[in-house]
Amino acid sequence: MGVTATLAQFAAEFPTDRIPAAILHESERCFLDYLGITLAGSAEPTVQMVMQVAEAMGGTPQATLLPGGRSSVAHAALVNGVASHVLDFDDTHEPTILHGTGPVMSAALAIGEWLNADGRDLIAAHSVGFEVAARVALAVNPGHYDKGFHVTGTAGTLGAAAAAGRLLGLNAGQMTHALSAAAAQAAGLREMFGSMTKSLHAGKAAMNGVLSALLAQRGWVSAPAGLEGLRGYFSVLSPDAADLDAAVGHLGETWELRRDGFKPYACGVVTHPTIDATARLGKRTGLPAADVAEIVCEVNPYVLELTGKREPTTGLEGKFSIYHCAAAGYIDGTARLRQFTDEAVHRPDLVALRSRVRAEVKEDLPTSAARVSLTSRDGRSWNEEVTAATGTPGNPLTDDDLKEKFYDLVVGGALDRSKAEALAEAALSATSAPHVTDITRLVSR
Amino acid sequence: MGVTATLAQFAAEFPTDRIPAAILHESERCFLDYLGITLAGSAEPTVQMVMQVAEAMGGTPQATLLPGGRSSVAHAALVNGVASHVLDFDDTHEPTILHGTGPVMSAALAIGEWLNADGRDLIAAHSVGFEVAARVALAVNPGHYDKGFHVTGTAGTLGAAAAAGRLLGLNAGQMTHALSAAAAQAAGLREMFGSMTKSLHAGKAAMNGVLSALLAQRGWVSAPAGLEGLRGYFSVLSPDAADLDAAVGHLGETWELRRDGFKPYACGVVTHPTIDATARLGKRTGLPAADVAEIVCEVNPYVLELTGKREPTTGLEGKFSIYHCAAAGYIDGTARLRQFTDEAVHRPDLVALRSRVRAEVKEDLPTSAARVSLTSRDGRSWNEEVTAATGTPGNPLTDDDLKEKFYDLVVGGALDRSKAEALAEAALSATSAPHVTDITRLVSR
Repeated sequence: MGVTATLAQFAAEFPTDRIPAAILHESERCFLDYLGITLAGSAEPTVQMVMQVAEAMGGTPQATLLPGGRSSVAHAALVNGVASHVLDFDDTHEPTILHGTGPVMSAALAIGEWLNADGRDLIAAHSVGFEVAARVALAVNPGHYDKGFHVTGTAGTLGAAAAAGRLLGLNAGQMTHALSAAAAQAAGLREMFGSMTKSLHAGKAAMNGVLSALLAQRGWVSAPAGLEGLRGYFSVLSPDAADLDAAVGHLGETWELRRDGFKPYACGVVTHPTIDATARLGKRTGLPAADVAEIVCEVNPYVLELTGKREPTTGLEGKFSIYHCAAAGYIDGTARLRQFTDEAVHRPDLVALRSRVRAEVKEDLPTSAARVSLTSRDGRSWNEEVTAATGTPGNPLTDDDLKEKFYDLVVGGALDRSKAEALAEAALSATSAPHVTDITRLVSR
Repeated sequence: MGVTATLAQFAAEFPTDRIPAAILHESERCFLDYLGITLAGSAEPTVQMVMQVAEAMGGTPQATLLPGGRSSVAHAALVNGVASHVLDFDDTHEPTILHGTGPVMSAALAIGEWLNADGRDLIAAHSVGFEVAARVALAVNPGHYDKGFHVTGTAGTLGAAAAAGRLLGLNAGQMTHALSAAAAQAAGLREMFGSMTKSLHAGKAAMNGVLSALLAQRGWVSAPAGLEGLRGYFSVLSPDAADLDAAVGHLGETWELRRDGFKPYACGVVTHPTIDATARLGKRTGLPAADVAEIVCEVNPYVLELTGKREPTTGLEGKFSIYHCAAAGYIDGTARLRQFTDEAVHRPDLVALRSRVRAEVKEDLPTSAARVSLTSRDGRSWNEEVTAATGTPGNPLTDDDLKEKFYDLVVGGALDRSKAEALAEAALSATSAPHVTDITRLVSR
């Protein structure tokens, strides 16, 4: 059986009661984190423009737009998917830098709400959809990403189709056509990083996955080997031969959610070990930023490729500046949303310190690690090494950490404290919810 | 100025009165051909499934779905785009095998109708949108297509965005963001050929172009160099360096519509010279098919790559079989829709003759040419060489030929004869229509 059919059979037929409890809970944690960043991202102009277009098109009110209102499942997937990624604050599959939950959960939540599914089916659809997205990403990693594809947009489409299709009750044959149609729509370019279109990738992945599943439900016939065929996804969207074992080996025995991490900082995950290190140096040295002569950050090659902006002029650009991130870590001890406003990137203390940050690429460092050295103006020096950044699978956030992040994101903004607490508890125990709508109802302001 | 910005300025600002009259008329001819194949394709299961999904989603009735009813401009672009390509009967840009009119006209027609534009603006949007799609296709030709991308889905998205954006009155800056957002959504895999997903590419290109233009109208900010940037469309979606001069050289002075051809036969354009040749041999020899010992077709390499199916079992597969096409040309003298039904591929005379067809790849033959030799069972032989297949730019269909094709497609099916004649005249003189809706109104059954 080919890769597309094997992943499809897994997505359609793998029994929910064989998904380990720890994996289902990881999906609940993803759900909580997703709700927080999506609600907090809802006010962004990017999201509001997508909302305006969806509103202009109109649609049957089938599912909740987390930024407000209801529309078709396609629009709900689109809008929520964009909102989930706009803050660059979403969970990350460590080996591939896939942000799987945005596309997968946006598709699952829309369809789950529409069908009045129970919480357990929603969460299982995420576990399985995430696995499909991550397997597709792994098969062509790292060539696909290195070539310039935004894997969240591409592989995310497959994960969204799998999650939506599972909730729709597709059989294995229908699911094969859904995954194949999704493969044909997979898109996303790294050139878009730092622009609004980056989060459009996640929203379109969710929406295209939903459309693929809805077509498959009606008897759509796509190419049977949409992934592994001669001119399929693997061959066309990657310069290297695909690792088919990574795509299907031990499927249902190992789970890629175990390699998914949550972001404590509101910026690209590759910057996180550096922020950890400068935050620790700030605490350890107690040295005012003005007395710092230089900070030298040894980092994985992706860091300069992805976040090499020397002089960010907007909050969004600040997320793509390792210099700004390092300075924020040192001075503020963290890098949350308030370190990435348009005002924050012009703060004189941050501007001054980041001009004295250097970054050096070290091929031997993984994306979760960094070595940072600091020299003071009076000639003293300190070093800090991070091997597993906060939030990565080797140093995970606890449920309480995730709740704290959630409250920081939504309380006083999207929700009041008591509603936020109720929603956090509901998300973390979503598998026991009789109806998905019991949870989405708590989102209303 | 970069390629994205240059194409955007052209799409937004090139004055309609500087588009040559012959080019505007070529767009009118494209419009007529588009209406015929789209109306004839409307009954296909592929189109009906997309219609059902659009109906399930709902949408404000802004524009006509040519298969019936009204929905949002996004759904109109999607449905009409799929219907325009489902019969594999649409116009073809000879150098790139781009089917530009499907995505471009589907986007333009939806927006033009919504805004109550006049016919001249609709037709100019097609001329300009087609040019943008063809330029994007040329810049990475042939590596992009050879790698496995379906250029109608990919470059078509840019053309659709350009046409929609021009009708929406985007300025050059907004248009740059529209084209860039479109570049990020460009998708389509040749693996899907022979399946329903092939025509989904055209529909999604139209819809994604419309969405990109609507976002740009609201202030969307995308990467400024979405096409030519380091990790933009050209670099990521092609193995070779882009030909930037092909993308922007002599823009507004030369017109790619001059290299666009119309299909006399309802199958892949690369099969057409072979069908011309076998049709002529059938007439010349007068030999019953049973007396043919062998037909040897010397063809461009794409022919076997794209249409190498030895034993087609469905009408759709028949379109991807040079053997079936050659046999139909010989026996029936043409290859219209009735040669590509599920019944036709099982006709004993066609099955028998196609088993005696051989195809040989000749690197020196362009896609518009073929050399065919026929040997009879009694040892006689004939040769036929085609250098410019019927309908290609070197051997174009006349307006009357196009009308005949249109009537053959719609009369007795989608329209009665008098309505068909009125619609054909309206399409061929669309630039003088006060309102796009004066034309779309004629489509109603």
